[in-house]
Amino acid sequence: MYRIKVIFIGHANEAFIEQQRLYRAPLCSSDTVIDFTSIKKGPETIEQTLDEILASQGIMDEVQAAAREKVDAIIVDCALDPLLSALRECVRIPVVGAAQSSYLMASALADNFSIISPLASLMPAYRRMAREYAVAEKLCSIRCLNIPIEDLLDEQAIKAFIEAGRTAIERDGAQVLVLGCTGMSPVVPQLSAALNVPIVDPAATAIAMAESMVRLHLTHSAAAYPFKPLS
Amino acid sequence: MYRIKVIFIGHANEAFIEQQRLYRAPLCSSDTVIDFTSIKKGPETIEQTLDEILASQGIMDEVQAAAREKVDAIIVDCALDPLLSALRECVRIPVVGAAQSSYLMASALADNFSIISPLASLMPAYRRMAREYAVAEKLCSIRCLNIPIEDLLDEQAIKAFIEAGRTAIERDGAQVLVLGCTGMSPVVPQLSAALNVPIVDPAATAIAMAESMVRLHLTHSAAAYPFKPLS
Amino acid sequence: MYRIKVIFIGHANEAFIEQQRLYRAPLCSSDTVIDFTSIKKGPETIEQTLDEILASQGIMDEVQAAAREKVDAIIVDCALDPLLSALRECVRIPVVGAAQSSYLMASALADNFSIISPLASLMPAYRRMAREYAVAEKLCSIRCLNIPIEDLLDEQAIKAFIEAGRTAIERDGAQVLVLGCTGMSPVVPQLSAALNVPIVDPAATAIAMAESMVRLHLTHSAAAYPFKPLS
Amino acid sequence: MYRIKVIFIGHANEAFIEQQRLYRAPLCSSDTVIDFTSIKKGPETIEQTLDEILASQGIMDEVQAAAREKVDAIIVDCALDPLLSALRECVRIPVVGAAQSSYLMASALADNFSIISPLASLMPAYRRMAREYAVAEKLCSIRCLNIPIEDLLDEQAIKAFIEAGRTAIERDGAQVLVLGCTGMSPVVPQLSAALNVPIVDPAATAIAMAESMVRLHLTHSAAAYPFKPLS
Amino acid sequence: MYRIKVIFIGHANEAFIEQQRLYRAPLCSSDTVIDFTSIKKGPETIEQTLDEILASQGIMDEVQAAAREKVDAIIVDCALDPLLSALRECVRIPVVGAAQSSYLMASALADNFSIISPLASLMPAYRRMAREYAVAEKLCSIRCLNIPIEDLLDEQAIKAFIEAGRTAIERDGAQVLVLGCTGMSPVVPQLSAALNVPIVDPAATAIAMAESMVRLHLTHSAAAYPFKPLS
Amino acid sequence: MYRIKVIFIGHANEAFIEQQRLYRAPLCSSDTVIDFTSIKKGPETIEQTLDEILASQGIMDEVQAAAREKVDAIIVDCALDPLLSALRECVRIPVVGAAQSSYLMASALADNFSIISPLASLMPAYRRMAREYAVAEKLCSIRCLNIPIEDLLDEQAIKAFIEAGRTAIERDGAQVLVLGCTGMSPVVPQLSAALNVPIVDPAATAIAMAESMVRLHLTHSAAAYPFKPLS
Repeated sequence: MYRIKVIFIGHANEAFIEQQRLYRAPLCSSDTVIDFTSIKKGPETIEQTLDEILASQGIMDEVQAAAREKVDAIIVDCALDPLLSALRECVRIPVVGAAQSSYLMASALADNFSIISPLASLMPAYRRMAREYAVAEKLCSIRCLNIPIEDLLDEQAIKAFIEAGRTAIERDGAQVLVLGCTGMSPVVPQLSAALNVPIVDPAATAIAMAESMVRLHLTHSAAAYPFKPLS
Repeated sequence: MYRIKVIFIGHANEAFIEQQRLYRAPLCSSDTVIDFTSIKKGPETIEQTLDEILASQGIMDEVQAAAREKVDAIIVDCALDPLLSALRECVRIPVVGAAQSSYLMASALADNFSIISPLASLMPAYRRMAREYAVAEKLCSIRCLNIPIEDLLDEQAIKAFIEAGRTAIERDGAQVLVLGCTGMSPVVPQLSAALNVPIVDPAATAIAMAESMVRLHLTHSAAAYPFKPLS
Repeated sequence: MYRIKVIFIGHANEAFIEQQRLYRAPLCSSDTVIDFTSIKKGPETIEQTLDEILASQGIMDEVQAAAREKVDAIIVDCALDPLLSALRECVRIPVVGAAQSSYLMASALADNFSIISPLASLMPAYRRMAREYAVAEKLCSIRCLNIPIEDLLDEQAIKAFIEAGRTAIERDGAQVLVLGCTGMSPVVPQLSAALNVPIVDPAATAIAMAESMVRLHLTHSAAAYPFKPLS
Repeated sequence: MYRIKVIFIGHANEAFIEQQRLYRAPLCSSDTVIDFTSIKKGPETIEQTLDEILASQGIMDEVQAAAREKVDAIIVDCALDPLLSALRECVRIPVVGAAQSSYLMASALADNFSIISPLASLMPAYRRMAREYAVAEKLCSIRCLNIPIEDLLDEQAIKAFIEAGRTAIERDGAQVLVLGCTGMSPVVPQLSAALNVPIVDPAATAIAMAESMVRLHLTHSAAAYPFKPLS
Repeated sequence: MYRIKVIFIGHANEAFIEQQRLYRAPLCSSDTVIDFTSIKKGPETIEQTLDEILASQGIMDEVQAAAREKVDAIIVDCALDPLLSALRECVRIPVVGAAQSSYLMASALADNFSIISPLASLMPAYRRMAREYAVAEKLCSIRCLNIPIEDLLDEQAIKAFIEAGRTAIERDGAQVLVLGCTGMSPVVPQLSAALNVPIVDPAATAIAMAESMVRLHLTHSAAAYPFKPLS
Repeated sequence: MYRIKVIFIGHANEAFIEQQRLYRAPLCSSDTVIDFTSIKKGPETIEQTLDEILASQGIMDEVQAAAREKVDAIIVDCALDPLLSALRECVRIPVVGAAQSSYLMASALADNFSIISPLASLMPAYRRMAREYAVAEKLCSIRCLNIPIEDLLDEQAIKAFIEAGRTAIERDGAQVLVLGCTGMSPVVPQLSAALNVPIVDPAATAIAMAESMVRLHLTHSAAAYPFKPLS
């Protein structure tokens, strides 16, 4: 049995965690159990690069706790991949970023993709990740909803997403749409039904990527992320 | 229960298929069954781009047969991803290439990777795929063994691989090594033990990628691969 | 006297071949004779990547026939360059693709170019070629006519082309327009008269490229396309 | 009079600060005063990406203190530019990274540059910055000394640097060498005397960049680094 | 005391020089004196690449005169960086281009930038420079005013600039705007007040870059610009 | 009958011109006549970027003379493409650069190429052209002979070339070799016989490119090279 720990980067109350568990549990195989937790310190939501740093102590605490629990992989559940490189330097088990996983899955499905961003403040961070991960050539546009993260499951947000998605497809030539937030799994089926390109959910692809790495006995390269155990 | 069809692109006798089944079955979850088949027409091994075309009728036959059997995903089991774009245009279920899957998995594990090629004749095709898939920026080198594909599981090949891998790591700065052939799964543990970077096996990553796509209800984008059903 | 063989990739009746001969004969020098033929098997027109594979037996037959006739160069007359890399692996004389020739000629005339595509289904293939040929940085946009290939010489198509061309020039900053089909030579003068940037005809540039290679005693590199003679 | 605050990212005792002051004071104009401080929490030296995060509270404290002192610009004095994007989101005055400044100065002096790294563990971080800053095309190699940061001013280190620099020039074609550490200003004249390409000192270029921004009334763009004041 | 020579590439009468001196003198430190001169031969304004060559004798004359006067750095004051590489080959002191300086300063302030061009004829030259300097990945668009260079300080030009700037910000996602001409320093404060991204003035950044190089004892690399003294 | 004017950029005496005529005449078709001339002012050979500018008056004189003679195309016969963009702005007939033509022909023959440079001082200019022409991704290395341009036809130079070519092929993976000088046509057959990849002669490809443009009624785009007739 594999155990994957999903760390929500933000304040997640029990109701939220239960809702997410409902949607995400079916995304891993029956050989795998997902545990959910959330950071205890840091901002309520991650809306720009600074928030990643404000959450850093909270993230480090949870990652170290997960390592002590001897889970098989850790997911940093946030579409900005907060601290991803640094975290990989302090544990040997796979640490998976939701953004990186989703960009790579999108790359497997088409020649390009667009990101639909809830907030304008997230957009520069997406683009810097695309450069750092060397997938900028595939990122054909970022379209913005201007909708607060806590309202992303509302009817209005879904409408806005579909409209932004259509613009990305028609005007920017997007062949895949990547969600710019990990909290939208419940509405992915609705989005997929309305738009004729694949919708990539970073929350879901992170789980698939983590399970893939565990199953294939792979973890991030120590040549890219020099291992330095924390006392 | 998910069903994934692996199509060996080359002549695979029953002994080979049994051996591969042994090594690959554990790579998918207990929710998934893998079927293996091989093309009936075409060259014995794929050693350069021309061979892909010589195998094209054989590949088309198997892909159409798999689609009729209503499997959930198809793997083109060859490190040159023969006909990948074309095949995605004629079926709606995921068609997964071993090369593409392995390049993306390598991208998830580090900032760059090298490919270890059995034969010099394969090298131009790897590089053209890296460009077409827009991962050329991550491909730091290709190192060649000059060993026939049928001898790749021999002791001598393993030695040569380890030496080439060390050169890629030390001289080219490779952080991950990708196998340039799908028939090497049996020796991956030995290679991994001898080299201090992750070894990515395209045969294995293709299975993980196919299962991920199926589980996440994703398939290649019709905007990239316009659907045209064959009569 | 040089002999160049143009292979139409699609069903070309005698009337079509005569019309094309009329327009293309003046494009080579008086030292050169062009022969025209067309594939005998495969789809009537090439409208997406899958069609290239459906035409593969037909193309191989004609290329081998041309090689036996000892022509000096072969042109694969289709704006998707079907099987180009593979064909170069089985004959030593130059095999010239219409798309590649036109992208390189456009590169010689300006800092960027746009492609005008007859059909949306062709667009992903253009972009993948641009990546594979490493000219993606020069391809500033693709604009689509949505007009069937058999209607491309109609007045309405010419109008649509001029409108799409103006959009490419004004909105995308295109400095050159490349035709996305090899059957439009008869209307190039009209297009050139109406638009103030060079119009590059892939049918014509392929002839010029083939003659250039022959005259300069150049052929594709065996280091890129390993030679493997077919029995 | 302009005031620039240099924050050493690591433990800097008074002796070190005095030594650095001696070498760096002449690098700004007589209109400018540089203050030096060092973080109070975090690792002694920054040797890999993880260290940046371990220093994050210490860095945030000093940056906020500097902002309260109403200095005109802040320099994050470390060749990994720790937290650069995040810090720019919490203050409006220029926050300058030593790495970014040095890569851009090197770009102004030649067509490419190499970085000489004290430690292998720093190398992946340099390359990720080069990608994120979109200067990867100019970074022709990274050569490593394998010398601890505290020994970088020793005779042996200088010798090793000169040897590594020669290799970068002769084998990699480096036209400029960038120091991979901000503590080497005292030995730059010796290095420059021994090597026939410019030696770019990130400690020095950060000061010049900071003074340039202040003098030109420029600061980082809020469109790239959305402003979010910390309480 | 440092001396920097600014060479206006075009006909600059005394009134123009005085006006520019007024605006530019404050841009260097009190340790530095700027001298202004203008070419005596060549076109009145530089409006396209050809003009650079028509000005070449005039530029060479002034550069050699400046070198004889033993100034510390030379600025080629034109947003096309006329002859920059060639001039660096004939003098050892820093020769600074206004365009290159401004593209690098823009790169320090954000992830991308747009150029606002007075004339359409300048646009291809900007883009070729962006490629040659390897910053094309950061150049997100060029917007054109279609206003003669001599009218660039008029109210109407300022209005047009603000409108073009807004389009670049809103439609192209520009995070910084770079002026496409060196004569606009007097109106930069007005532009900055009206637009919410940094406005980079190439005339000003060239001065800051030149002073930085002088102060840091840096000059262009002889490995990139082989030194060949003129008799 | 087409007339192409080849302008040698350097001092070419009658003997040299006759020798070159002998080798180059067969490179164009029997429909075309090539005239040869040489600049009357400027350096004897072009060995670095500065030399292009020193030759500028001489080049402009010959280009204007050729335009008055109503030739059909002009070749700037030098492997640094001196003033290419500027010249295209002052005449409407095709102006062809030897370097650009050869890089594009090499691109048509393989996935990459190396340049063999006579002198180290030429190397930065090749690389800047590769960037400006957006073919840098295809340029895999530059290897240097360190042999004066006037000695390039000597036995010793041929030996050195073959050795450098082998290094480029074996160590850098070069699939095509491009000559870095236009005066080597007489020895190309020897080089081709000794090396197993295509040898691209810029002198020859420029002729083929010029004839191609003329025959296809193409010339450089005025959108890239704004036309400005010289009085």
